[in-house]
Amino acid sequence: MSNSLVPETRVLAVASQVVYGHVGNSMASFAMQSLGCDVAALNTVHFSNHTGYRQFKGTRATAQEITDLYQGLCQSNLTDFDVMLSGYAPSAAAVEAVGAIGMDLKKKSGKPGSFFWVLDPVMGDQGRLYVNGDVVPAYKEVIKHADLILPNQFEAEVLSGIEITSLATLAEAITAIHRIYSVPHVIITSVQLSKLSQSGCTPTPPENFLTVIGSTTKSDGSPRLFRVDVPALDCFFSGTGDMFAALMVARLREAVAAAGDGLQSTASWVSPDSVSATTLPLAQATLKVLSSMHSVLERTMEARNAELAKMALETSQSEGLSVEEQQKQDYLRRTKAAEVRLVRNVQFLRDPLVQFEAQEWRKEDLPVGLQ
Amino acid sequence: MSNSLVPETRVLAVASQVVYGHVGNSMASFAMQSLGCDVAALNTVHFSNHTGYRQFKGTRATAQEITDLYQGLCQSNLTDFDVMLSGYAPSAAAVEAVGAIGMDLKKKSGKPGSFFWVLDPVMGDQGRLYVNGDVVPAYKEVIKHADLILPNQFEAEVLSGIEITSLATLAEAITAIHRIYSVPHVIITSVQLSKLSQSGCTPTPPENFLTVIGSTTKSDGSPRLFRVDVPALDCFFSGTGDMFAALMVARLREAVAAAGDGLQSTASWVSPDSVSATTLPLAQATLKVLSSMHSVLERTMEARNAELAKMALETSQSEGLSVEEQQKQDYLRRTKAAEVRLVRNVQFLRDPLVQFEAQEWRKEDLPVGLQ
Repeated sequence: MSNSLVPETRVLAVASQVVYGHVGNSMASFAMQSLGCDVAALNTVHFSNHTGYRQFKGTRATAQEITDLYQGLCQSNLTDFDVMLSGYAPSAAAVEAVGAIGMDLKKKSGKPGSFFWVLDPVMGDQGRLYVNGDVVPAYKEVIKHADLILPNQFEAEVLSGIEITSLATLAEAITAIHRIYSVPHVIITSVQLSKLSQSGCTPTPPENFLTVIGSTTKSDGSPRLFRVDVPALDCFFSGTGDMFAALMVARLREAVAAAGDGLQSTASWVSPDSVSATTLPLAQATLKVLSSMHSVLERTMEARNAELAKMALETSQSEGLSVEEQQKQDYLRRTKAAEVRLVRNVQFLRDPLVQFEAQEWRKEDLPVGLQ
Repeated sequence: MSNSLVPETRVLAVASQVVYGHVGNSMASFAMQSLGCDVAALNTVHFSNHTGYRQFKGTRATAQEITDLYQGLCQSNLTDFDVMLSGYAPSAAAVEAVGAIGMDLKKKSGKPGSFFWVLDPVMGDQGRLYVNGDVVPAYKEVIKHADLILPNQFEAEVLSGIEITSLATLAEAITAIHRIYSVPHVIITSVQLSKLSQSGCTPTPPENFLTVIGSTTKSDGSPRLFRVDVPALDCFFSGTGDMFAALMVARLREAVAAAGDGLQSTASWVSPDSVSATTLPLAQATLKVLSSMHSVLERTMEARNAELAKMALETSQSEGLSVEEQQKQDYLRRTKAAEVRLVRNVQFLRDPLVQFEAQEWRKEDLPVGLQ
């Protein structure tokens, strides 16, 4: 047994699946399996490729089909999952169907801590919803039953009702999410802090950094906030949210087991109040996850840049194509070139070289009123 | 880059997918990925679990849906596959749709050896068809375009029209498959030679052995036959055919690259006539595949036996159930207990300890008429 495997973990992964490339379960299954998790993949869509190509073919599962697959598991007693990871669902009814699965698994699990639900509330990005409007209220109901949610900045705004324009409003949004939805763990993936107004507090990372902000509640419901700054890469990669979520499942499970003190049999794996923000299992897991991702994405960017350089040298292919068609072909090739190089870089998933550190948001760093 | 990865290989895997457990693509994707292959999984069914449970829920893809997904890949230029692995297809029309994909990829590939198609003609087992009758003629057309086919003993009988009752008829069946379908590589997975009449030739393996028989044609179309005997485990495991096929894709690619001499750019990777049966890349790959499988299945059986021992000690659960219901619950649990322990045993996939050897079927061992 390799030492780089995390403790045995049975995961139900409910997300999209694509034939080509790595997003949704086509990213998450292998990422979790490579760390030793046994993954049951329930696919909410089956598309040829991710939507970043601007064209795709395939099918969406109905809410009934999602429910049926789960009923199939139930009737044969195949529901002994330790963790559920839920991602993209193609409709409000599908979000509700996935929510019902999470609630049923929690009910079945019995003992505190024996089932943990990681939910990625996939709704939109960069100020824009890319799901139907009725998906938002569906998520607002469902996440009340999740243990950890992973919104991006825009989704955190939608869920909290707070526009994130500063560190102060960011802390307010996380506090609100803990309070409104009783969700004990939150990570807001990728906030560009340098773009926010700074209110004169905490060191600002340089412009080309992204910040990941996380928090586990204390027993009084107040947040324990930590942040990790990571260098941003100059490229858009699809599936990084799914990669973050998948690696987080494995690494959080590992960190909770390592924490001892019966944390694994504590409801929602919430650490005692004495544990500081930066020593939270959530923070420790985040460091490993981001380190793995940074290594894989760096290598992806190198491979993508080599591919773009090759493209620049080839001109003959464009003969006979209209300008518009040529632009489309270029776009498709650039999108393909940015597909995450997952499988050949598995050693960075399994054995991350931890190169970042978690910083605590101290009370005195926060504006008055949030202290 | 780990040394245990095979040369970079892009695989289109067209097969069934289950939420729980490891059969079809739910076996093959991880098996190939763990050896370093980039796998695009096109799922022909999405079931809750394998049919060995005697109950399942889920959906089958229509031939049109399979074709659409492939068209989705084509329109975005995502068809640069080195290998296609095709397994279960849920209807004759679906077999034809998969066949059309294989033929199109071969046409697109251009250069000899740059595309290789491994086809598992999933039709039945143990003397029984488990597909509609019209699937048989569909396969008989489609396999003419495959490079390697992996029938079990029953499927080899169906394809060759020869009942396999002896070593002589086994050799006849393989010879016939090469000839009728012009398919250059054949492996018949799991023949129980000790059950066949021996015609007094070749050493007979002991009763608890299974034999895998393979052949690559010579330039005159005649077979180069090798066999590998492996100890049989006293348990039925679902998904072993898919495991064999998936590992074969990776190991054959590796063996062909290692063979040098331009074999990779030779049509269908057929070795020169001077290469003996046991030194064929197909034979070398088979040894690694069977060694990996034996280690994983041994460990699966240990885990399953521990689970069965636990079951035997538990009696309280049966209270209040009818005898029939109790038997059903026992059956489900035994079936679950025999699910292949794939993910935690990945090191045996990556670094097989080769423990078997290939034997040549020499001419003089074969009955007159096949020499």
